[in-house]
Amino acid sequence: VKARLALLPLLFVACSTPAAPSVPPVTVASPPMLEAPAPPSAPAPLVTGAPGAQQIADLGACALESGERIEGCEIGYRTYGTLDAKRSNAVLFPTWFTGTTKSLTDFVPGKLVDTSRYFLILVDALADGVSTSPSNSKTQPRLAFPKITIRDMVESQKKLLDALGIAKLHAVMGISMGGMQALEWSVAHPDVPARVVSIVGTPQLASHDLLLWTSELHALESDVAYKNGDYGGRPALRAVLDIHNMMLTTPAHRSKETRRDAFGAWIAEREADKGFDWNDWRRQLEAMLAHDVAKKDGGSLETAAKRVKAKTLVIVAEQDHMVSPFTSKRWAEALSAKLVVLDTPCGHLAPGCETEKVAGAVKAFLAE
Amino acid sequence: VKARLALLPLLFVACSTPAAPSVPPVTVASPPMLEAPAPPSAPAPLVTGAPGAQQIADLGACALESGERIEGCEIGYRTYGTLDAKRSNAVLFPTWFTGTTKSLTDFVPGKLVDTSRYFLILVDALADGVSTSPSNSKTQPRLAFPKITIRDMVESQKKLLDALGIAKLHAVMGISMGGMQALEWSVAHPDVPARVVSIVGTPQLASHDLLLWTSELHALESDVAYKNGDYGGRPALRAVLDIHNMMLTTPAHRSKETRRDAFGAWIAEREADKGFDWNDWRRQLEAMLAHDVAKKDGGSLETAAKRVKAKTLVIVAEQDHMVSPFTSKRWAEALSAKLVVLDTPCGHLAPGCETEKVAGAVKAFLAE
Repeated sequence: VKARLALLPLLFVACSTPAAPSVPPVTVASPPMLEAPAPPSAPAPLVTGAPGAQQIADLGACALESGERIEGCEIGYRTYGTLDAKRSNAVLFPTWFTGTTKSLTDFVPGKLVDTSRYFLILVDALADGVSTSPSNSKTQPRLAFPKITIRDMVESQKKLLDALGIAKLHAVMGISMGGMQALEWSVAHPDVPARVVSIVGTPQLASHDLLLWTSELHALESDVAYKNGDYGGRPALRAVLDIHNMMLTTPAHRSKETRRDAFGAWIAEREADKGFDWNDWRRQLEAMLAHDVAKKDGGSLETAAKRVKAKTLVIVAEQDHMVSPFTSKRWAEALSAKLVVLDTPCGHLAPGCETEKVAGAVKAFLAE
Repeated sequence: VKARLALLPLLFVACSTPAAPSVPPVTVASPPMLEAPAPPSAPAPLVTGAPGAQQIADLGACALESGERIEGCEIGYRTYGTLDAKRSNAVLFPTWFTGTTKSLTDFVPGKLVDTSRYFLILVDALADGVSTSPSNSKTQPRLAFPKITIRDMVESQKKLLDALGIAKLHAVMGISMGGMQALEWSVAHPDVPARVVSIVGTPQLASHDLLLWTSELHALESDVAYKNGDYGGRPALRAVLDIHNMMLTTPAHRSKETRRDAFGAWIAEREADKGFDWNDWRRQLEAMLAHDVAKKDGGSLETAAKRVKAKTLVIVAEQDHMVSPFTSKRWAEALSAKLVVLDTPCGHLAPGCETEKVAGAVKAFLAE
């Protein structure tokens, strides 16, 4: 189900595909303008598709940190719950690396975020294959698609919120690269999110993380089958997938979960993955490599932290080999933020292994 | 300094290069035959080069587990100390992955092994670029060099010992892939080594280890610059080096030792490595992938352990991300062997970080 929300200046045209019989009616409080004082510049009435339906906002062009721009910049999103009259209960949830909002649908609505209380917006990060990406851009396909940053993802989401007429967020939260975006939000637009939750994200990559993403980048770039981005279909870049799967968890987890005699089948299945376009992978990976909320503060987390106004919840995994917990801990300390430490051989997948602990901490934090 | 020891059946011809002025005279007790009862088939008199000098034994051909053979099979080695009259104090020390006996010279003689007491033989594992290897074989160059196993390395060393007239070993010991060879010795030739020491080695690869070496193999094979083994010079296969350097230690170690702003220089230096030929890397890596002391016991460590007669010392690193400690621990348990657990963020490099603990344990064990 894909609905399209085309934004012409201040004009929304919702082109929803027919809702499935079981889908409840559009749940946005309408028209909210009648129930709340109109903000100085009244936003257009909010029209969104059916709960959970894929929608796309056409934002025109997205200017990038680099000075380049993404033409025909479209951002995918899905909404759940009801925006309240004051437009104050929106929770923005960007995607993780190589994930789409579809991959969040099982994990977030009603589980991490109570959609009877909050207006949840799952948003597709740039280059995820749903929002404008190397794999789907007509005018900037493949490596003609410019390099982007986590900040660029945030700015595209800010444009989406502007288009939706949402000026403030109850919270922005995310997992992994989604957590990076959430933390970037808190320094880029300190007045927009009241709360920020980073789950196995990081404000700044530790050297190990740089090494990991560099190894994936080099494995991708140098693979015969990658052909400098001009591959056909979705070739098997086995080394990239091997590295990624190795670092998602821990040696202890892998060796316990996969018997030696089952290893061949296990890795064959992983290497048969066809899930994510390689140029999209590359552009998102480069965005993470460049990520640093303190980029404009000479790399000082302590200086960058002074700009943050949101209350912050930091959830890290002690044995995370993909997104190191070290800098997140320093960030939490600099902010005097609440810190939750997961400790399991699941490693970076800890939030999926300790869902109750994570959901409990998030639920309590959102209610503060 | 390279000396050559060419073995014609029962005839040694030592062609030592001139010893440096500071090198003490050849320290082999000669002729040992006069001081000890001659074994049933008297070995030829032992002639070795100057202490620590690179020597090469020409073993003719080496038959392999696969049924193939290495033609003109030459094995590199270096000796230290004096072989006693009973030829009972020899300690064999094979190389680690991508290492040569030269890389052992700083670490082993006089430090791990007391060369005033033991006749130490450092030995170059097959395919290390000194012993016969894809990089130096005239008749089986590059990928024409057959796949080898850890067992094949052991058998080549057995031939070397036969050539040297050494029937029993006081000990065989090694680090990492050297430890794998040492453990293989104890099941392949239970009557030869009286003691076996494995330092961050393993009797059988855990699934994580399989994943690691598979990722390196796939990164190597698929690299444009590898050209299916027909590269010129020593191309930069950056992803292979990145993976390897990432797994040598731990995320905590890397992030502590390398500042973010020093990361670029750090990885550039690592990627400029020209140390080890890629086809040699591949053949040794494949040997590790196939390693399993219980190969003939249906993979059962407990069954394989019943064949072991040597006293065994197992030293593992709890945070080792390159050679998992899990199976080594099971092996130690099956043998009721002494187990020493290092626990440091140095990971696989723990023996270099906890040298005193390792040297102390080894020294005590060799003296038992």
